[in-house]
Amino acid sequence: MNETVKNLTERKSCAAFKPEHISREEIDEIVAAGLNAPSGMNAQGALLIVVQDDEAVAELSELNAKAAREMLSKVNPAAAAGFPADPFYGAKDVIAVVAKKGATHIYDGSLVMGNLMNAAWSMGIDSRWIHRAKEVFESEKGKEILAKLGINDEVEGIGFCVLGHAAKEKPKTEIKPNRVFYL
Amino acid sequence: MNETVKNLTERKSCAAFKPEHISREEIDEIVAAGLNAPSGMNAQGALLIVVQDDEAVAELSELNAKAAREMLSKVNPAAAAGFPADPFYGAKDVIAVVAKKGATHIYDGSLVMGNLMNAAWSMGIDSRWIHRAKEVFESEKGKEILAKLGINDEVEGIGFCVLGHAAKEKPKTEIKPNRVFYL
Repeated sequence: MNETVKNLTERKSCAAFKPEHISREEIDEIVAAGLNAPSGMNAQGALLIVVQDDEAVAELSELNAKAAREMLSKVNPAAAAGFPADPFYGAKDVIAVVAKKGATHIYDGSLVMGNLMNAAWSMGIDSRWIHRAKEVFESEKGKEILAKLGINDEVEGIGFCVLGHAAKEKPKTEIKPNRVFYL
Repeated sequence: MNETVKNLTERKSCAAFKPEHISREEIDEIVAAGLNAPSGMNAQGALLIVVQDDEAVAELSELNAKAAREMLSKVNPAAAAGFPADPFYGAKDVIAVVAKKGATHIYDGSLVMGNLMNAAWSMGIDSRWIHRAKEVFESEKGKEILAKLGINDEVEGIGFCVLGHAAKEKPKTEIKPNRVFYL
């Protein structure tokens, strides 16, 4: 098993980050991997929003928590009330992925997210996919952020890739059985 | 840039495969990377269908072309009529990814597809994501295949990862500008 397959196979998601930034140079390398993910018809419709500013990260985390509470309140009010204040698990650096709407934009945006997480892991940087990017960028505040950045195409939020270094050991996960079939 | 980031950044999709199989050992290593892709709430709902049998690959390719012609006939009858007989580009090995329906199954299944393609590339094996897995596994023939394999959960087709070795040089692609923003 080569180094790349080892990284793809051993990567674990992180649920507690140290309150420290990673460097802009590290971000740039992770972004390069994301930009080069394949896309349907090579449309390259996924856009990457790098967020290293503490206030901006905190705002996105708040918007994410708000979206979670709104979604949960419909199905499980207790869970909504008890939802963590910071769904980014303390991470100080975030890359939000949004994708121009098209035939394959959710698949394509997901491949970008995968490359971000895999590149980070190979560099000794922990990460996690945080969902609800769709809801955040459909909200009024989310739309304001897109407009401020000059993103005027119709996009859909795909995910928040939160980045940093683990504050505690990542739990071991087991691969579930019966996931591979032979035709 | 480490070896993994280099692989993630340099991977290219292949549009012409030699009529040769890759080995079962290679498939197993690629599958391991796919199985270990992250998933929402660690649901691991993506299933991998390995297809190395020539007749089964040909049947899936035919079903895929049929789905393409049906989709195209509604918008562009000329394109439908001229659609290639083999949308798998001559590849002799395929891993189909389907995912149990849930809140994040399309995102999760896409991450599996990404790991398959990236692992393959790092091993010197070419690949391409072929779409219309959704339509193929919604068709009667597709449902029969799932039933034959004993896949009884309600699943959605995510993609066909076709694998092999390039029969001609892969075209160079350029990353489009204005895809990275800083907040």
